[in-house]
Amino acid sequence: MPEPSQLGDLAMLIAKNGKQFIIRLDPDLQLQTHRGVLQHEHLIGLPWGTTVASHIDHEFLMLQPTLRDILLHTKRQSQIIYPKEIGYILLRLSIGPGVQVVEAGTGSGALTTALAWAVGPQGMVYSYDRRGDMLQLAGRNLERVGLRERVELKQLDIEAGFTEQGIGSLFLDLPHAHRYLRQTREAMADGGILGVILPTANQVSRFLSELEGKLFALPEVCEIMLRFYKPNPQRLRPTDRMVAHTGYLVFARAVRG
Amino acid sequence: MPEPSQLGDLAMLIAKNGKQFIIRLDPDLQLQTHRGVLQHEHLIGLPWGTTVASHIDHEFLMLQPTLRDILLHTKRQSQIIYPKEIGYILLRLSIGPGVQVVEAGTGSGALTTALAWAVGPQGMVYSYDRRGDMLQLAGRNLERVGLRERVELKQLDIEAGFTEQGIGSLFLDLPHAHRYLRQTREAMADGGILGVILPTANQVSRFLSELEGKLFALPEVCEIMLRFYKPNPQRLRPTDRMVAHTGYLVFARAVRG
Amino acid sequence: MPEPSQLGDLAMLIAKNGKQFIIRLDPDLQLQTHRGVLQHEHLIGLPWGTTVASHIDHEFLMLQPTLRDILLHTKRQSQIIYPKEIGYILLRLSIGPGVQVVEAGTGSGALTTALAWAVGPQGMVYSYDRRGDMLQLAGRNLERVGLRERVELKQLDIEAGFTEQGIGSLFLDLPHAHRYLRQTREAMADGGILGVILPTANQVSRFLSELEGKLFALPEVCEIMLRFYKPNPQRLRPTDRMVAHTGYLVFARAVRG
Amino acid sequence: MPEPSQLGDLAMLIAKNGKQFIIRLDPDLQLQTHRGVLQHEHLIGLPWGTTVASHIDHEFLMLQPTLRDILLHTKRQSQIIYPKEIGYILLRLSIGPGVQVVEAGTGSGALTTALAWAVGPQGMVYSYDRRGDMLQLAGRNLERVGLRERVELKQLDIEAGFTEQGIGSLFLDLPHAHRYLRQTREAMADGGILGVILPTANQVSRFLSELEGKLFALPEVCEIMLRFYKPNPQRLRPTDRMVAHTGYLVFARAVRG
Repeated sequence: MPEPSQLGDLAMLIAKNGKQFIIRLDPDLQLQTHRGVLQHEHLIGLPWGTTVASHIDHEFLMLQPTLRDILLHTKRQSQIIYPKEIGYILLRLSIGPGVQVVEAGTGSGALTTALAWAVGPQGMVYSYDRRGDMLQLAGRNLERVGLRERVELKQLDIEAGFTEQGIGSLFLDLPHAHRYLRQTREAMADGGILGVILPTANQVSRFLSELEGKLFALPEVCEIMLRFYKPNPQRLRPTDRMVAHTGYLVFARAVRG
Repeated sequence: MPEPSQLGDLAMLIAKNGKQFIIRLDPDLQLQTHRGVLQHEHLIGLPWGTTVASHIDHEFLMLQPTLRDILLHTKRQSQIIYPKEIGYILLRLSIGPGVQVVEAGTGSGALTTALAWAVGPQGMVYSYDRRGDMLQLAGRNLERVGLRERVELKQLDIEAGFTEQGIGSLFLDLPHAHRYLRQTREAMADGGILGVILPTANQVSRFLSELEGKLFALPEVCEIMLRFYKPNPQRLRPTDRMVAHTGYLVFARAVRG
Repeated sequence: MPEPSQLGDLAMLIAKNGKQFIIRLDPDLQLQTHRGVLQHEHLIGLPWGTTVASHIDHEFLMLQPTLRDILLHTKRQSQIIYPKEIGYILLRLSIGPGVQVVEAGTGSGALTTALAWAVGPQGMVYSYDRRGDMLQLAGRNLERVGLRERVELKQLDIEAGFTEQGIGSLFLDLPHAHRYLRQTREAMADGGILGVILPTANQVSRFLSELEGKLFALPEVCEIMLRFYKPNPQRLRPTDRMVAHTGYLVFARAVRG
Repeated sequence: MPEPSQLGDLAMLIAKNGKQFIIRLDPDLQLQTHRGVLQHEHLIGLPWGTTVASHIDHEFLMLQPTLRDILLHTKRQSQIIYPKEIGYILLRLSIGPGVQVVEAGTGSGALTTALAWAVGPQGMVYSYDRRGDMLQLAGRNLERVGLRERVELKQLDIEAGFTEQGIGSLFLDLPHAHRYLRQTREAMADGGILGVILPTANQVSRFLSELEGKLFALPEVCEIMLRFYKPNPQRLRPTDRMVAHTGYLVFARAVRG
């Protein structure tokens, strides 16, 4: 017996040409697209995986968005971290149910969303950004997918240090991350894990230099490449083009002197 | 005030040459290495991130293992899926706290471990394998890291179908995954997500062929490459060699006719 | 004493925005661009590496095109093989001064151009295509860069076999290359080298299957990825996107039974 | 009528396990391997592509080595540039029959060999190295493959400048290549092409910095990845491991002020 969609659920509508829309089901709303209008009230109560038609008879497939879909639909005013990196970051920082994690800066909130998803209702994400506009955008993005209450958004400059202490997992996505290593180490638990994403090789060099002598050990630098294939069984081949770079990832463990 | 290690905690000991050991702290045990012996009772109560010495004065760094560390230390009798793939699989299958997920086959249990970690105490992993010896190995691997109770290991041939129904997330790691698509679809909820890892391009073609006409949509094929760098700030460069391939990943959504 | 450009030389003009034009210097002609007109007669006799101005004062850098530049400017009606593959193909097929090489099909003539360049005035390229329009296009492309006389263009279906015999280096760029292995082997010298480019994994499998039992040995399959970096010394990083795939390369040696 | 091997030819003998030997055929010599002895005089006059047996009946396939084979068999005392890079370097530097090219340093002479091959008997390679032992090794490597007379080996420090002038193609493979840009530019023709291989990202940054303001334009930075596949038609898949890095390539054009 299939479980149908319900009022308040997140739903993803996918047109034949692949165009996707993520909405929260609300009987008073309608989804307007170039391929016609869909009334939410006609969608509520339908089984997931159903194909529905717009008022001008274009077909849309209705699915629950996965975490990946949600991340790719993050409304952004800044470069976001991609799912290929986020999956690995979650593993490397040991993010799981009940974990408390700190990140700076928040940006558009894509990684924040994934962290909030993974820590669950018992966990907590503390996310810092100096810019109020970014925090508002991230707040709306989190609100939209129902994860706002797992995140404490803090408009603070980490130059002055983090408010938390004894943090086991901390992630930096900042242009000058190497400047805040003292504050970062002070906020971290002994043995904690630090992660950072840096777009340029020069930043990686500078960050590694600053790590030395600051009670961090086991530095690891890597990059992740994701290549898609055209899913044609008779003509299997990679797509023509791919993302060549989003950033270098650096990880290190906080140690005692 | 640093939180010290406790009896029963998982601990990772890392020698100067990078060799790693993961143990569960138990005052009656000792860790024997080529670089000397460490008594667990001397480790219990120390802050994480402390450097300790073996009886012949070799130094070891003591840390809590991350999920990545645990996965790489999975005792194996079969090829395991690597962290670079596992991170992305968790995102794509929307695995998070409280989720119920099915996998077949269990193998050595590396992915099983990650799934159990991510679903948390409120979730459940149902893992199928025909081979009792693999299930025993996976069971010991899960036991060792304290995740055994979140996994139901089932010695069943999925040829006869899955016992579960309405499953939202299902992963296949089987040589002939394409043969079980009927049983797989029957176990899945409408709108559910299917993932599979396949070592060869021929298997991907066959799998995609079989997907057609079986109430699956939005097939996606990809591969993930992870390249490490030597973490030397003055001489930043990739390592000389890297893993070229573990497997192709295929994902699809279960839809209604 | 710098050697100046001469009448009849190939010249590349590069605008500030990176747009490139390759011309053959002829005092009766002019180059018309969106950034103004350049009279060839003003270019002839200038040293290479000089910056010149159009009639509306836009600057262009004048250089001799390299083989890479020429290949990328091949006028095309079909997918061309890229320099990243061509460089490796030349090495693998041992193309050098004086070599005789056969290719099928000609297509737009990009590989043909590189082969003609590399074999020099003492070598010869025999290039087959069933389509007269492609041969005409390739002919014009070769003419334009002064390599036409090193290539014999043949409008023949290789189904009926090649006219040459005892060929040491032979390259196939055909949709159904696996169908012509008998004819290919018959044209090749014992010990000769065969290369082929195939867009899909299915084609590679089929080609490898057909190679078996046909007096070929040492099959090698590979793909080449080229990633560019933004050449900013303070912000060194890969470009955002890259070519993910042009084709799989397969090589094999002709052997005796 | 197959052309047989002749006295003085280079021959490659390949054992069943893939082990390769490159020799110059000489009736007075024998090839000694762990799989038995082969008398050259029994090889001379056989058609290429023939399978021969050692005195203890192990089989070897006899082929003419391709340029790739020769490069991979370069006897080395230093890191060599790989065929994947060399193919692209030849294209980018427009190396072809009759070209005069300069390189520094010579090292073990792998790139020198490829340059000498590609310029043909009408071209010339000028190769600089400070170390006499490297030049001797490179000289023997070139001698062994019959290309010695196309190369002028020069034991000079390029700190003092190159002896040549008006060079159109120049390649640097030196630890501190950025220090010699003045000397390099002085040796180059206006419009000439410079190439360099650099192992680390820091070196690339430094090199790009030094290029600025030194009459070079159009800098290009790239890296080339080559991935092999297991050539099994029923189980097509990449090899397990691959080379992750040999070096970054940088190219630029010499321009006038």
